[in-house]
Amino acid sequence: MNQEKLASKQQSQQNVFISPDTLPLVVGVDLGGTQIRAAVLQGATLLSRAGLLTGADTTPESVIPRMIQAVNQAIAEASTTLDHVAGIGIGAPGPLNSRTGVIFSPPNLRWRNVPLRDIFTEHFKVPVFVENDANAAALGEYMFGAGRGCTELVYLTISTGIGGGVIADGRILEGIAGTAAEIGHMTVDLHGPLCNCGNIGCLESISSGTAIARRANELVALGAGHELLAFALSHQPQDTTANTPIDSSKPSATPIHINARTVALAAQAGIPQAEKIIAEAAEALGFGLVNVIHIFNPQLIILGGSITKIGDRLLGPAQRIVQKHAMRVPRESVHIALAELGPEVGLVGAGSLIHYNQHV
Amino acid sequence: MNQEKLASKQQSQQNVFISPDTLPLVVGVDLGGTQIRAAVLQGATLLSRAGLLTGADTTPESVIPRMIQAVNQAIAEASTTLDHVAGIGIGAPGPLNSRTGVIFSPPNLRWRNVPLRDIFTEHFKVPVFVENDANAAALGEYMFGAGRGCTELVYLTISTGIGGGVIADGRILEGIAGTAAEIGHMTVDLHGPLCNCGNIGCLESISSGTAIARRANELVALGAGHELLAFALSHQPQDTTANTPIDSSKPSATPIHINARTVALAAQAGIPQAEKIIAEAAEALGFGLVNVIHIFNPQLIILGGSITKIGDRLLGPAQRIVQKHAMRVPRESVHIALAELGPEVGLVGAGSLIHYNQHV
Repeated sequence: MNQEKLASKQQSQQNVFISPDTLPLVVGVDLGGTQIRAAVLQGATLLSRAGLLTGADTTPESVIPRMIQAVNQAIAEASTTLDHVAGIGIGAPGPLNSRTGVIFSPPNLRWRNVPLRDIFTEHFKVPVFVENDANAAALGEYMFGAGRGCTELVYLTISTGIGGGVIADGRILEGIAGTAAEIGHMTVDLHGPLCNCGNIGCLESISSGTAIARRANELVALGAGHELLAFALSHQPQDTTANTPIDSSKPSATPIHINARTVALAAQAGIPQAEKIIAEAAEALGFGLVNVIHIFNPQLIILGGSITKIGDRLLGPAQRIVQKHAMRVPRESVHIALAELGPEVGLVGAGSLIHYNQHV
Repeated sequence: MNQEKLASKQQSQQNVFISPDTLPLVVGVDLGGTQIRAAVLQGATLLSRAGLLTGADTTPESVIPRMIQAVNQAIAEASTTLDHVAGIGIGAPGPLNSRTGVIFSPPNLRWRNVPLRDIFTEHFKVPVFVENDANAAALGEYMFGAGRGCTELVYLTISTGIGGGVIADGRILEGIAGTAAEIGHMTVDLHGPLCNCGNIGCLESISSGTAIARRANELVALGAGHELLAFALSHQPQDTTANTPIDSSKPSATPIHINARTVALAAQAGIPQAEKIIAEAAEALGFGLVNVIHIFNPQLIILGGSITKIGDRLLGPAQRIVQKHAMRVPRESVHIALAELGPEVGLVGAGSLIHYNQHV
């Protein structure tokens, strides 16, 4: 994107875009199903970082003290104190209500209606904001990444699942209970596979890493993926607990769980079954993008997450579907770009919650 | 809906909800492909109404003078003058940019980048606002209809086509070029039919009146809709210009163009092909609603348009899909209701643009 254009756009907007040098320190916390990460940040710059495993016991009684510990570690490691921190932003798995900071019941945590914001405010006595992790990432890209200067953007993160965050007129689209922007759980094929969420033919059920892997393993289990299986056995590090010998007469005895990365490599190597799986993922992604364009008429769609690393084999056909099937006016106003913030997007996004909530 | 609850909700909000008695007079204009309508309104109450045919010549040079004439007629008929009118709101077919009031190139009008707002402002010297007709209708329902008190709502109008309007955090979702909320053009079946818009398997291509009629006529043309055709011939007023005798060996010689209303009546009468067409329309609508719930997490979805008159045969299965397939938290926060404003929604919505733009 044209940087001059963006810069002038930024100046003309209400100010959520602050010079990074003058930004106060903030703490960002990224609560995941396997890891708790915390950092002290100035804008998109990490001054420190702390990480702890979420642990096998995912009850709030076990996880929240570890989150507090990670925050304290990050503050200590940045050689600062809580007094110098403008606030704590937390990105957490949804569903949650960002207005109240209550976490409902995320699939990967044994939580139910936990008032996380109040617990943190009580403990740290600084402003605390809680946001859905995908919304926080969208906000991070909006304030400090690919989305700077764009007040209408949609962020899609395609990895194990597909998460979404929407900035409309410069504000996070929240919905009435804070669960909006579940773009991964939009049906694009009503005759498609059952999704983990209980819906049918969601974008996530076709184009996510989990879906790509599942389709490959289903093919192999049905005895229809010999070439793909042979490729996986010679290219994918094997799980030694599952090294059953190949026996195609017993389709359930798959000797290896093929992952999405292997499917992508196999497609690259010209193995037809893998090419077909990636092509179908690309097709669903393409129609998902058309839907996003028709529904939000965004200036920018930002694609992040590990699956986007498949690159042109996935993104090329998806973009061609957009060119062919999206309506002219919204198609001509949208730019599709890759995320800029990389693996730290969760922490940057969490930290940016302070700037977002205190400057607008 | 509980009126007490709504009333208290209204009081607690930033005030876009004004007592109808104290509202200033406004003019609403509804520009359609076949008719231009104008009215003087106080809130949702029409004090006058004027209607003119859009005419065969749909160039701006021909249509805009007729719009001006309709406004003048409505003002005269309400026994008032322009001095007593707070502004003129115009609902027009998209795509258009509501920020600038420029109409791009609607399918039913021979317009291209027409600065309609500036032309009207120049002529009438009062504030003028232009909005996509579906957005204006959504706004009308939000301010004066089923959506009073709900700051997060999605309006869907299902008739010839399927239009949408979204109110998010009390504001119309516009997008960067003003074309957002094209919910009818959301792919729900990527292997589905080609839509008029150029996309595949849009909600409109399966659940609109045009789609229902098209599917019926296709079946008949293929010789697979004998019962449906017989029903249509005995129940639907026939177009005398097309009364070719039935000859199933020539599938193209359909003696009657079956309309959506007839398909609905035939389904009601238990004719299987008609039941199947309505069932498929209901299924696509159901997944469309799931998508809307996942994407917007609205408090309310308002369904309007002539096709909703099919009633439970369409809306029942759609609601069951929502109950079965939408995620719990957003599902439990949404209420699905029928539109309240009826056929005047376009005029009320257009007029409400004045209140919306001048009070927030």
